[in-house]
Amino acid sequence: MTKQKRTVFYLSDRTGITAETLGHSLLTQFDGIEWKKINVPFLDNMAKARTLVERINHAAECDGYRPLVFSTLLKADILEVIRQANCRVYDFFETFISSIEQELQQPSARMAGRSHGLQQPLSYFKRIAAINYALGHDDGVNPKNFTDADIILVGVSRAGKTPTCLYLALQYGIAAANYPLTQEDMLANQLPKVLEPVRNKLFGLTLSAAQLHFIREERRPHSQYASLAQCQREIQWQESLFQLFHIPYLDTTHISIEEISAIILDRSGLKRQLYG
Amino acid sequence: MTKQKRTVFYLSDRTGITAETLGHSLLTQFDGIEWKKINVPFLDNMAKARTLVERINHAAECDGYRPLVFSTLLKADILEVIRQANCRVYDFFETFISSIEQELQQPSARMAGRSHGLQQPLSYFKRIAAINYALGHDDGVNPKNFTDADIILVGVSRAGKTPTCLYLALQYGIAAANYPLTQEDMLANQLPKVLEPVRNKLFGLTLSAAQLHFIREERRPHSQYASLAQCQREIQWQESLFQLFHIPYLDTTHISIEEISAIILDRSGLKRQLYG
Repeated sequence: MTKQKRTVFYLSDRTGITAETLGHSLLTQFDGIEWKKINVPFLDNMAKARTLVERINHAAECDGYRPLVFSTLLKADILEVIRQANCRVYDFFETFISSIEQELQQPSARMAGRSHGLQQPLSYFKRIAAINYALGHDDGVNPKNFTDADIILVGVSRAGKTPTCLYLALQYGIAAANYPLTQEDMLANQLPKVLEPVRNKLFGLTLSAAQLHFIREERRPHSQYASLAQCQREIQWQESLFQLFHIPYLDTTHISIEEISAIILDRSGLKRQLYG
Repeated sequence: MTKQKRTVFYLSDRTGITAETLGHSLLTQFDGIEWKKINVPFLDNMAKARTLVERINHAAECDGYRPLVFSTLLKADILEVIRQANCRVYDFFETFISSIEQELQQPSARMAGRSHGLQQPLSYFKRIAAINYALGHDDGVNPKNFTDADIILVGVSRAGKTPTCLYLALQYGIAAANYPLTQEDMLANQLPKVLEPVRNKLFGLTLSAAQLHFIREERRPHSQYASLAQCQREIQWQESLFQLFHIPYLDTTHISIEEISAIILDRSGLKRQLYG
């Protein structure tokens, strides 16, 4: 049996980030469908809307099914044009806004670009400072400044420390450093000395030896470094180290950078520095 | 007149990213309200739900208004408990899922953790490769490899190149390098030589001289580097350079990293390498 093919359009006055995030989270609940996702940001005039109608109709013909359209458009007149196309529209904005207006007893501004627009200067600086901190304290660099970190991720090579630090900085404004656990630490069987003064900021990342092996093979195929036996040794050792020193840690085998970051925030009790 | 204070809860089985995105994009449309936002991720059992009911009721008492609750919970029984609290619930999932089920003529999986769960291995590697590329080609480092870049951001110091490159990598899997335009380039009044072979990949970032001055003052207060006159010279020069060499460019004064990135993607015609 061939898979049902469906085209999905994400429509927005601005970046389309909200439309995509919301649409994506709904569509992941449906298996066995082949999605073709098209982001249509900055849909801000009638001419663009009319061209899009043709595109939607064309997709409907090709697929044999009408496309799904997820919209965060604030301008009702543009969405009205889109509704003429052969599609099913899910309107995130209108669906909720009236009842929120009623609850708050005030009208909404209906102005585009607010959701991912420029933050307040303070947030901007916090965000940039956190990014700079992550970049300047990646992979064990400048451990002297670790006392300034909000959190310090530790783990063996390829455990996901760097992307998580960057995500924590960009998304939450958290100053995150990271420090690699190496072969030498393993032989000495102790926590690296530089980490001792900041033990209460440590958070371990671990994963299955098989997954680590898979990731390392991509980097250095058929190396000792990537071998399953080596990965097993390192993972086993680091997990007992985490337990011995009461370092909280997380198994990241089945989760994404977004989830790792949200879980770290939740467990460490760190306060996000950016909102929205 | 004092501002209306309102507490907002974002409820989720998992990270809460979707619930926050939805709530935030709606709430930005209402001015003059002081929001207190509380993210409640991993709300996955009845005991947590009952504790939360008390917390919501307490907030309602303190605020003098009932809290708004944005939920992406998949488990109806947990949300049922929350509905007993003194609050207004906006249920993202149930609001849309039935009509999508009807449209697709199949039931949804209703399984948590899919939206920001682990991507396919291919996407995972693309994402990590893009992050590594951005880290290895920041601030003019390794220009020999610029031919491998999907895009190369250029601009004067503090124009926002680094955070944008990181966001493009993390969010879209785009391999983005960046190269700073310096005082020396300005004196020579030409495009840096190393950029000539990759002219078709260049994208300029500019901003108002006043904003650049503001940002640089934060970094090096009262310096020549941060002076308004210096910022004016550099901005004027780089914009004429962009025009002379037909380098597309963007004024980032009033927009966020998310918007800059989405606009770059839209204008350059680059295809995102990650979806969702």
